[in-house]
Amino acid sequence: MTDDKRINQMREQLPEPTLRRLPWYLAYVRLLLDAGVEYVSSTQIAKEINVDASMIAKDLSFLNIKGKTRIGYEVASLVHELQDFLGFKVGHNAVMIGVGSLGGALIHDSGLANYGLRIVAGFDIRHDVVGTTLCGIPIYDISELDQRLATLNAEIGVIAVPIDHAQEVSDLLVKAGIKALWNFTPFRITAPQDVVIQNTSIYAQLAVMYNRMGKQM
Amino acid sequence: MTDDKRINQMREQLPEPTLRRLPWYLAYVRLLLDAGVEYVSSTQIAKEINVDASMIAKDLSFLNIKGKTRIGYEVASLVHELQDFLGFKVGHNAVMIGVGSLGGALIHDSGLANYGLRIVAGFDIRHDVVGTTLCGIPIYDISELDQRLATLNAEIGVIAVPIDHAQEVSDLLVKAGIKALWNFTPFRITAPQDVVIQNTSIYAQLAVMYNRMGKQM
Repeated sequence: MTDDKRINQMREQLPEPTLRRLPWYLAYVRLLLDAGVEYVSSTQIAKEINVDASMIAKDLSFLNIKGKTRIGYEVASLVHELQDFLGFKVGHNAVMIGVGSLGGALIHDSGLANYGLRIVAGFDIRHDVVGTTLCGIPIYDISELDQRLATLNAEIGVIAVPIDHAQEVSDLLVKAGIKALWNFTPFRITAPQDVVIQNTSIYAQLAVMYNRMGKQM
Repeated sequence: MTDDKRINQMREQLPEPTLRRLPWYLAYVRLLLDAGVEYVSSTQIAKEINVDASMIAKDLSFLNIKGKTRIGYEVASLVHELQDFLGFKVGHNAVMIGVGSLGGALIHDSGLANYGLRIVAGFDIRHDVVGTTLCGIPIYDISELDQRLATLNAEIGVIAVPIDHAQEVSDLLVKAGIKALWNFTPFRITAPQDVVIQNTSIYAQLAVMYNRMGKQM
């Protein structure tokens, strides 16, 4: 069995809460690696990131790594396995739709490249940005989307347009063959079943935070 | 009973999934309001945003608004009630810790102000940004946090620093009396129970998206 097949099989069984926690562990063990730490136990991780140790051990059991009794996991291997498993080591080409305040910021965010997201082009409708580059990334007119995507080899469309254009650009992206939509607008875009939609509305998170704050008062 | 008390009572009973959906409805009905539409039914909302109509009706029953048979909800009232209920109309003062790529972008994002978040100051350690302003917002040295917070009247600390400083700045913010932490790093910060923590790790969302993409292939 190839590595890819093995990872895909493990992913099939993976509960989403586990998947959401794995990046937390990665963030922490990366710090340990940078600090020169060689081994870490699930108890230590638990203490640092406030998650139950038995849950961590169970989550990590989905990975191709075994901890040693009384020593724990080898930090370098754990970082490697987590990055690999989470897809952060494979480069995923993406296009940014809307290079205004948020879209432009995401292009500037070098952190995304560390997590495997390679933004290869931006698209907008504003004359003052079309034809320019941002961090070396060309910005095209949205009307060229179809034609440009034919050669860009992008699988992900990142949507950072005003909400009243969210569905419209989603439809354009799907029509052009994009396989996943990362939606930063608070609008609930719809797409055919075989297209992955990931919603990241930071404003909705604000509502949850305000609500929790209200309860504390 | 005052309006605030009434809203707080309703919030107590509110399930979090409902709370997460309310901003979606708001995003959609705002579009209708801009387009001059006067009434909308839960069936129409359901069709547009891909959520079950009965669930929408149930979610909206937590608000102080009633739909009319065969006509639906008055759009302007629905926008007003949703904004009010979600806390988007109250200005919440916040400080931005770390004004690098992501933090700087969030300061630029005028969308946040529309959702009630007023960033009143930024803090950083880099000499080239400390002492400057960004969109009219002053950037101070992190060593001045305590002193500045005494007069800024901020309740929220937004954390956009490198992950190895996330816990450190959280501790500083809590010590200075901040009541809520909006954490944009992938590090799981911890804080005393009476401090609200809202985690928005966009990189963790990437992992979930990659995983779903793998399953589709």
